[in-house]
Amino acid sequence: MSIRIGILGYGNLGRGVECAIRQNEDMELCAVFTRRAPETLTIQTPDVPVCNVNDIPDWKDKIDVMILCGGSATDLPEQTKKYAELFNVVDSFDTHANIPEHFSNVDAVAKAAGTVAIISVGWDPGMFSLNRMYANAILPDGNDYTFWGKGVSQGHSDAIRRIDGVKDAKQYTIPVEAALTSVRNGENPKLSTREKHTRECFVVLEEGADAARVESEIKNMPNYFADYDTTVHFISEEELKKNHSGIPHGGFVLRSGKTGWNGENSHIIEYSLKLDSNPEFTASVIAAYARAAYKLSKEGQKGCKTVFDIAPAYLSNKTPEELRATLL
Amino acid sequence: MSIRIGILGYGNLGRGVECAIRQNEDMELCAVFTRRAPETLTIQTPDVPVCNVNDIPDWKDKIDVMILCGGSATDLPEQTKKYAELFNVVDSFDTHANIPEHFSNVDAVAKAAGTVAIISVGWDPGMFSLNRMYANAILPDGNDYTFWGKGVSQGHSDAIRRIDGVKDAKQYTIPVEAALTSVRNGENPKLSTREKHTRECFVVLEEGADAARVESEIKNMPNYFADYDTTVHFISEEELKKNHSGIPHGGFVLRSGKTGWNGENSHIIEYSLKLDSNPEFTASVIAAYARAAYKLSKEGQKGCKTVFDIAPAYLSNKTPEELRATLL
Repeated sequence: MSIRIGILGYGNLGRGVECAIRQNEDMELCAVFTRRAPETLTIQTPDVPVCNVNDIPDWKDKIDVMILCGGSATDLPEQTKKYAELFNVVDSFDTHANIPEHFSNVDAVAKAAGTVAIISVGWDPGMFSLNRMYANAILPDGNDYTFWGKGVSQGHSDAIRRIDGVKDAKQYTIPVEAALTSVRNGENPKLSTREKHTRECFVVLEEGADAARVESEIKNMPNYFADYDTTVHFISEEELKKNHSGIPHGGFVLRSGKTGWNGENSHIIEYSLKLDSNPEFTASVIAAYARAAYKLSKEGQKGCKTVFDIAPAYLSNKTPEELRATLL
Repeated sequence: MSIRIGILGYGNLGRGVECAIRQNEDMELCAVFTRRAPETLTIQTPDVPVCNVNDIPDWKDKIDVMILCGGSATDLPEQTKKYAELFNVVDSFDTHANIPEHFSNVDAVAKAAGTVAIISVGWDPGMFSLNRMYANAILPDGNDYTFWGKGVSQGHSDAIRRIDGVKDAKQYTIPVEAALTSVRNGENPKLSTREKHTRECFVVLEEGADAARVESEIKNMPNYFADYDTTVHFISEEELKKNHSGIPHGGFVLRSGKTGWNGENSHIIEYSLKLDSNPEFTASVIAAYARAAYKLSKEGQKGCKTVFDIAPAYLSNKTPEELRATLL
């Protein structure tokens, strides 16, 4: 008996979830829901219906977990609480500052409806959060460091594209190796924004645009680039397509802490990800937590949860006995 | 109101737990128990009694969590089930092959007594197991790699010391950098024992011992050294004391996996530890799980648990609200 999954939203993340479900033999994709006209959408899985969002209520008893693949800015604040009334849900809400509010909105609905809603699943928030939390609990006397990259920042790429004269652009966030090394050496550096990451931009200009002006506008853009050492490369549209069409990402979470009667011993805990595809990896984390949502719901649990609230074994399709025998 | 902790066994691990308790303001050390004559033992914490193991039953209602700091070979198989009758307990049982049996022995006692027993806590088993499990759940299509070191292996050091003519010895297990690099590059290598780790030995000879014979005995010792590239250095007792008296350790857990409709994207999840003191870090993990044992018991839970069964938030002294606001 498979876990019946629905996907709402068929962008990069939705397609990633579709792939992830295929890799988990205890899961089955039942339907993909879209705001577009369903007939305009072709999905990868054969014989799975594409439906309009308006049909979602008809699926109430036919789907165990609805995976919400919308954006954090406007989609998820509405969708997660709306659909937690009907289904167990998982989302990847990633506006860190608004997580407490999102949690309490969703928790109220899920508790009333008797569903399980797992929010902010992915790698940051998600696996990075988990590693920050475990490392903080283990080493209370220490410092946290999170580095992102090397990877494509969609927000920064979009910011460049909005500049007059820019036809297309990709921006990579890159951790500064010297800073990482210092942290790994237990030096507990205080790092400024500029010392932690550099930004590298690949820009395609519109015909006749002024390269010097565009470069200056990028490098001086407040919040996005002004506080960083930024490199700008002007390249052709062909080169951008050929060499920069992937969506890689990753990063590093470190905690540097002391133990001993007088703090005489140092320890470094490091977690890192190197991802060819940011959305597919996020989707893979979400699929594992969809399994957890299903199991928790079967146990009669309800309400909103985050990665902090869920025992690791719920993520696995192995039995507790198998886990103890093979992975402990 | 502090969590009242007892320590049974005052070797390296017990002393490490004592230090860890001092770093956690919600915990309080109530007593240290020893098989030795209590008056022969001086502990670091002022005004805490040292008691004989025979007095343990008198402490039944005065201790919330008893931390068992004995060895896995003979102590813990008896102690954990014995003391789970009286207390919530945490142990660091690390004989991987015997974990299922230990679990079921302890589970029966703890369920009957209404206590929580958390076994096999530390870093391997422990944090490494957790990372293997999370990574397997996220990337079902992939390969696992665990490398240990650079660090002191107590078992291998002991094996050298048993050789005729050896006065003292320290053995370091060292991961092979080329193997690590290949895994990180997503090459999914099949690695032999020899390709994963090397062994480096620092040996102090007895007066007049035959160095060539000792070196040959070490390098050809079955299971311990014969399958590895082993280097032997003969040094003076002073040099051993000066440069090799620490107990550093650490290692790397990696999972290399594929996602995408046709497995076209690769991902590397890596967790690593670099520890100045193996027992103090293990003790720090144990302290966090002692908090979890206390909280779970307060909730009315009972029975044997491992790191797989415990939601991360139980390890922290922050509230769920604080965790969501600061670490998610």
